[in-house]
Amino acid sequence: MLTLDKIYHAKYVLKDVIRQTDLIFAPQMSRDCEVYLKTENLQITGSFKVRGSAYKISQLSAEEKKKGVIACSAGNHAQGVAMAATKSGIPSLICLPDGAPISKVEATKRYGAQVELVKGVYDDAYARALQLKEEKGYAFIHPFDDEDVIAGQGTIGLEILEQLDDVDAVIVPVGGGGLISGVAYAIKCLRPECKVYGVQAAGAASMVHALQEGKPDALPAAKTIADGIAVKKSGELTYQLCRDYVDEVVTVTDDEVSSAILTLIEQQKLIAEGAGAVAVAAVLFNKVPVEGKKVVCLVSGGNIDVTILSRVISRGLLKAGRSADITVELVDKPGQLTAVSEIVASAGGNVVAVYHDRADLDTDITACYLRLVLETRDHAHVEEIKSALAAAGYRLIQ
Amino acid sequence: MLTLDKIYHAKYVLKDVIRQTDLIFAPQMSRDCEVYLKTENLQITGSFKVRGSAYKISQLSAEEKKKGVIACSAGNHAQGVAMAATKSGIPSLICLPDGAPISKVEATKRYGAQVELVKGVYDDAYARALQLKEEKGYAFIHPFDDEDVIAGQGTIGLEILEQLDDVDAVIVPVGGGGLISGVAYAIKCLRPECKVYGVQAAGAASMVHALQEGKPDALPAAKTIADGIAVKKSGELTYQLCRDYVDEVVTVTDDEVSSAILTLIEQQKLIAEGAGAVAVAAVLFNKVPVEGKKVVCLVSGGNIDVTILSRVISRGLLKAGRSADITVELVDKPGQLTAVSEIVASAGGNVVAVYHDRADLDTDITACYLRLVLETRDHAHVEEIKSALAAAGYRLIQ
Repeated sequence: MLTLDKIYHAKYVLKDVIRQTDLIFAPQMSRDCEVYLKTENLQITGSFKVRGSAYKISQLSAEEKKKGVIACSAGNHAQGVAMAATKSGIPSLICLPDGAPISKVEATKRYGAQVELVKGVYDDAYARALQLKEEKGYAFIHPFDDEDVIAGQGTIGLEILEQLDDVDAVIVPVGGGGLISGVAYAIKCLRPECKVYGVQAAGAASMVHALQEGKPDALPAAKTIADGIAVKKSGELTYQLCRDYVDEVVTVTDDEVSSAILTLIEQQKLIAEGAGAVAVAAVLFNKVPVEGKKVVCLVSGGNIDVTILSRVISRGLLKAGRSADITVELVDKPGQLTAVSEIVASAGGNVVAVYHDRADLDTDITACYLRLVLETRDHAHVEEIKSALAAAGYRLIQ
Repeated sequence: MLTLDKIYHAKYVLKDVIRQTDLIFAPQMSRDCEVYLKTENLQITGSFKVRGSAYKISQLSAEEKKKGVIACSAGNHAQGVAMAATKSGIPSLICLPDGAPISKVEATKRYGAQVELVKGVYDDAYARALQLKEEKGYAFIHPFDDEDVIAGQGTIGLEILEQLDDVDAVIVPVGGGGLISGVAYAIKCLRPECKVYGVQAAGAASMVHALQEGKPDALPAAKTIADGIAVKKSGELTYQLCRDYVDEVVTVTDDEVSSAILTLIEQQKLIAEGAGAVAVAAVLFNKVPVEGKKVVCLVSGGNIDVTILSRVISRGLLKAGRSADITVELVDKPGQLTAVSEIVASAGGNVVAVYHDRADLDTDITACYLRLVLETRDHAHVEEIKSALAAAGYRLIQ
C-alpha cells in the first residue's frame, strides 16, 4: 500500500540521484491566477521519470540487482531507467520498437543501457520485454503501475509543498497515471485543501475514460502530439489512486498543446515536450477552475524531437496570428510583386518568405500564384493585411 | 568608483525585484570539465539586464524619478529598463529603430514602457534618445558604461560564489562589457584564484580589439547572430575593468553559437539567445583553457526570435550531421524514387522531405534532380549513405 512514509523514504533515497528542480513564478502566463512552473523538464534526463525508476531500482533485492533490469519504452521512461540503473551500477536492457526516432535510441544508449530494437510497434516491444523478463529473470520496471515508481514520482508533491506552502492547486499531466498518483497522494495527505487536477491529451484520454467507466479500459487508439502521455489504458493502481485523490481530469487538444509549448519557449525560455506542456495548456485555455488561485503547473519533461519542435513553432505562430500564410492570385506581368509587397509593408506586415508559382490547373493560363509568409502581430493584423490586398483588387486564395 | 560594497548594496536592493536564478549542473556538456550553467535566461524579462537597470533606477534622485527614464535599445536592455521602471512606478520611454522586430516592440510595451520608433538604425535611435534626454530632462539609462549598472550585473558574481564556492572559472558573454565588468570585479575581489573569461562574437569583437589597442575604438561593423552583444565599441569604464579583472577575452563564430543554442535546447531544455549561448560555445569548441576545472557558463539571456530559432535548429542539425541535404541526379524513368529510397533506408537514414525537380539548365533533358532531406546520426552516417548511393551508380550533386 502507498504511504506517505514511502514517499518520504523515496525523497531520502533520491536526494543524491536527482535534482530538486526550481519552482519558477510565471506572472505573464495568466491574468486570472498566479502561475508557478515546477520545472521537471530541467530534471536530469529531461523528465521526472528518473525519480520513479531510481526509487524502484533502489528497492530491488541484491539478487535482482545482480541480474539487471528491463523496460520497454521509446521515451522518457527508457532514459530514466537507463540512467538510474547505470548510476547504481546495474545492467539495463531497454526494448524499443524499431521505428523509434534515432535521437531517442541514441540517448538511451548514452545513459548506459543496452538497447534491443524489436520489429513492430510499442506492443511488440512490450511483449518482447516480458518474454525476456521470464527467460532471463530481469526485473521489469513498469513505467507507471507500480507502488515504488509512484512513490518516487510523489517526491515532486513534497517539493512543491516545500517551495510554495500556500499553493491552492496543482495541475499534472496524466498518461498512465503514475506521476499524478504520487503527487496527488502526497499533496492530499499533507494539504487536503489543495486541489489536484489532471490533464490528458484529447486523443488519448484513457484516465478520463476509466473514471467515467469505473475501471481502466483500453481505448481503441491513442493519437496525440504529446507522445509521452499517449497511453491507451491506465493502470489499475493508478486508476484507484486518481479516483480517490484527484479532483478532476480534463483534456486539451493538440493545437492547445502546441500553443503552450510556444508560450513556454517565448515567455519562460523553457523547452517542454508535448506531455510536459499540457498543464500549462489547461491554464491558458481555461480548462480548470483556478481563477484567483496560486497554481502550480507541473512541466513534466522536455524531451521533444527538434524537428517536431520546429513544426510546433511554425504551427503555434500561425494559430496565434503571429505569422500568416497568404496566397494571392496575380496576373503574370511585371511589377505585380512590388505592388503586393508595398501593400503588405504599409499595413505593417513583415515578409519572411515568398513563393511565386505559375503552374496550377485551376488558374487562368496567364495568371500565377504568389504565396507570402508574413510576420504579423495578431489575428486582427492578419485580417487588416488581407483586407488591404482585397481592397486593391487582388484575389486571395484560401 | 566601483566597490564590492556597491555590489552588495545592489544585491540587497534587488532582492525583491529579481529572481536568484538556478545554477544547473550540466554533466553532458563536456567530458573535459565540469560545466554548470548560471541560468539568467530564466531571469524575469528573460535576461540579466533587469539587474543593472533596476539598481541604476533605485539610485536616481526623487526628482529624476519623477521625470522618468529614457533608454535606447532594440532588445534586452529595453525590456529590463521598462520592467524596472514600471515596478518602481516610474515612467519610461524607449527609443527603438523602426526596423526592430514586432515581437521586441510588443514585449517592451507589455512591460509598461512608452515606445518611440525612430526612422533609421540603432545609432539614429540613440541620437534621438540623447536629444530627448536634453529636451525633457529624462534620466538616461546606459546599457553598460555606468557604475550602477555594472554593480547591478555584478550581483550575478556574488550568486555564483554562493552557489558553487569552489568554482575554478567563470565564462561570461561580452558585448559592451557591463556584465563581465561587474561579474569579474565581484569574483576577483572575493576569490582571486577563480579565472574569468569573456566571450565575444567573432563578427563583433570590440572588447578584444580594445584590449589589443589599449583603448576602446569603434569597429567598422558588428555583424553576428548574437545580436545582444553586437556592439561596435566597448565602454570606457568597462574597458578599464576588463583590462584589470578579466583573464582573457576569446571569440566564437556564428556557427559555433548556433551549435551551442541547439545543445542547450536538446541537452538542457533551455532556450538561449545567441548572446546567451556564447559562453557555452566557448566550452564546446575549446576556446578557453578549462580542462579538469569546475566551470560556470553564464547563460545571459533567452530572448531569441522564434523564427530565427527555427533556422538555428535546422542549421545546427546540418552542422552536426544530424540531418543531411542530399541531391541525386536521376534518369527520368519510373522506379527511380523507390530505388533511391531503398538504398537510403537500408543505410539507416530517415527521409524527412523529398523534392523532385525536372527543370535545370545544367542537367540532361531526360534527367532530373531528387533532393532528399534526411535525419541521420552523425557525419560518418551521412558519408555512409552518400557512398551507398554512389556505389549504386547515382551521381550526387554538391
